[in-house]
Amino acid sequence: MEFHFLGTGSGVPSTTRNVSGLVVRFLQKKSTQWLFDCGEATQHQILQTPITLTKIDRIFISHLHGDHLFGLPGLLCSRSAQGAKTALTVYGPKGVEEFIQSSLTISKSFLSYDIDFVEISEGVIFEDDSIKVEVTELDHVMPSYAFKLIEADQPGSLMVDQLKSLGIEPGPIYQKIKRGERVQLPDGQMIIGTDYVTEKKQGRVVVIAGDTRPMEKMVTFADSAHLLIHEGTFRHDKKEHAEQFGHSTITEVAELAKRANVSQLILTHISSRYAGEEEELSKEVQMIFAHSIIAHDFMVYRLMNNVQLGCAK
Amino acid sequence: MEFHFLGTGSGVPSTTRNVSGLVVRFLQKKSTQWLFDCGEATQHQILQTPITLTKIDRIFISHLHGDHLFGLPGLLCSRSAQGAKTALTVYGPKGVEEFIQSSLTISKSFLSYDIDFVEISEGVIFEDDSIKVEVTELDHVMPSYAFKLIEADQPGSLMVDQLKSLGIEPGPIYQKIKRGERVQLPDGQMIIGTDYVTEKKQGRVVVIAGDTRPMEKMVTFADSAHLLIHEGTFRHDKKEHAEQFGHSTITEVAELAKRANVSQLILTHISSRYAGEEEELSKEVQMIFAHSIIAHDFMVYRLMNNVQLGCAK
Ligand SMILES: [Zn+2]
Ligand SMILES: [Zn+2]
Repeated sequence: MEFHFLGTGSGVPSTTRNVSGLVVRFLQKKSTQWLFDCGEATQHQILQTPITLTKIDRIFISHLHGDHLFGLPGLLCSRSAQGAKTALTVYGPKGVEEFIQSSLTISKSFLSYDIDFVEISEGVIFEDDSIKVEVTELDHVMPSYAFKLIEADQPGSLMVDQLKSLGIEPGPIYQKIKRGERVQLPDGQMIIGTDYVTEKKQGRVVVIAGDTRPMEKMVTFADSAHLLIHEGTFRHDKKEHAEQFGHSTITEVAELAKRANVSQLILTHISSRYAGEEEELSKEVQMIFAHSIIAHDFMVYRLMNNVQLGCAK
Repeated sequence: MEFHFLGTGSGVPSTTRNVSGLVVRFLQKKSTQWLFDCGEATQHQILQTPITLTKIDRIFISHLHGDHLFGLPGLLCSRSAQGAKTALTVYGPKGVEEFIQSSLTISKSFLSYDIDFVEISEGVIFEDDSIKVEVTELDHVMPSYAFKLIEADQPGSLMVDQLKSLGIEPGPIYQKIKRGERVQLPDGQMIIGTDYVTEKKQGRVVVIAGDTRPMEKMVTFADSAHLLIHEGTFRHDKKEHAEQFGHSTITEVAELAKRANVSQLILTHISSRYAGEEEELSKEVQMIFAHSIIAHDFMVYRLMNNVQLGCAK
């Protein structure tokens, strides 16, 4: 998975940070792309990246503040102008469908593809063979949600070369071995299937949290995640301010990441007041949790495919 | 007046042309600023210019297509985040109020200032001591309008130095002279007021036309304008395409400018298919009407204050 940070600022766009937008590219899934939040000019940011609108087939909106939402009508229209035919699903809190329908109707925009809307609430909102998405509600000034992407474990694969060197050619016997059964070979020798199957690959877990005050339950929700992407709008001296407007401080989130034992933390939704202080912010959070990064616009983070739980920590 | 072209493309943003947005700065009117159309990321473009959101007090929307409208909710919210207190008036076709109200309500955005909405139709939609704005309906695939900014004529001013050299000191007699009356001086000499008053300055006329097919009535509406800003989406070989989608070709608009006897034509809303061909486009229109410019993003055009009708041509 590749994470393209398109907008890492909070509230209003600045010359260095756009409002929220994040694309996840699934390198294994026919280059499917998912978009998380869509602040104004997300499509403009995309023009500077290898991402193509027509390949985005799911959009997740964490909450309905303008800096996470107002880029959606334009992006949907441009996806249509590019001739997209594949359906798109938009997951978001109640209101996102009304906003889109009203924008499209008033602007007499007709799309070249179908849109489905899924109103999100706690629980699993999407699942296929390779991944599922679970949602939990956060603590902001309006309903706001975190998304947990849970990859399915990949079963181990047969060590074909070794089997062949024992003289075992492909056939029904391979299924028995793969199931881990004890198998008698024609020469009478017994082998144990599990000796000839690679270890199963544990699926990766990524948590992407929208705007929120720090929450105790996130320690569990993000437990042992390979990657936690979380807002960190303010430094800790603005704790009261953060509390009032429903946000977290970078200190609080670094502590959360440590307690949740995640492999990597990426902080985003950074207030524009810290322009030029990114280095200090980095140091501050890394003192608490070493594997922390302060995101910047156009940052690309690649989460390796073969991560084993634990080993990337 | 200064014209800041923020977005000169059509339909969808490209890396070189944003969707529609144009700010008029009135250098004489306490640096008042008016915005014409507000495509997505107009506020982002403004970040690169000397324009400040808080000084924009009137916004005119030519029609409700997304590329002229979708930047409005974000721009209004950012104007509020910057602490604007002065009221804002939005002029536009029926539907613009509904779009804004729905966007603000769903995103729970509360503005720091009042907004008035004026639903536009043919005729004068704004007038104060120094300027009035007249509207005429265009011919697009949805209701679309052109705006004519008509500056009030500025009366001539007294030639005070010359009066003083005649020994005439300020007093009630100055009013008589300014009115152009014949006045007898204490020494018996007669003077004619009009000889001591500079010529009145004729107000400037600027026409800004939204998306439209070419229209015969525009020859009259833009007659002798100092500046005509008009869409020119396609070259003339795309005439049928232009007709189908309710647009003009640059050739048609150059001919209109010539027949209307305007002082300057600026073409905007240029299809992204012509990226890199700006020079050819320029030559093509200048063959028909010499005073033509193809606009580009961040172009600033300054219309001089002391233009006399006719002399700038
Ligand atoms: Zn936000
Ligand atoms: Zn347009």
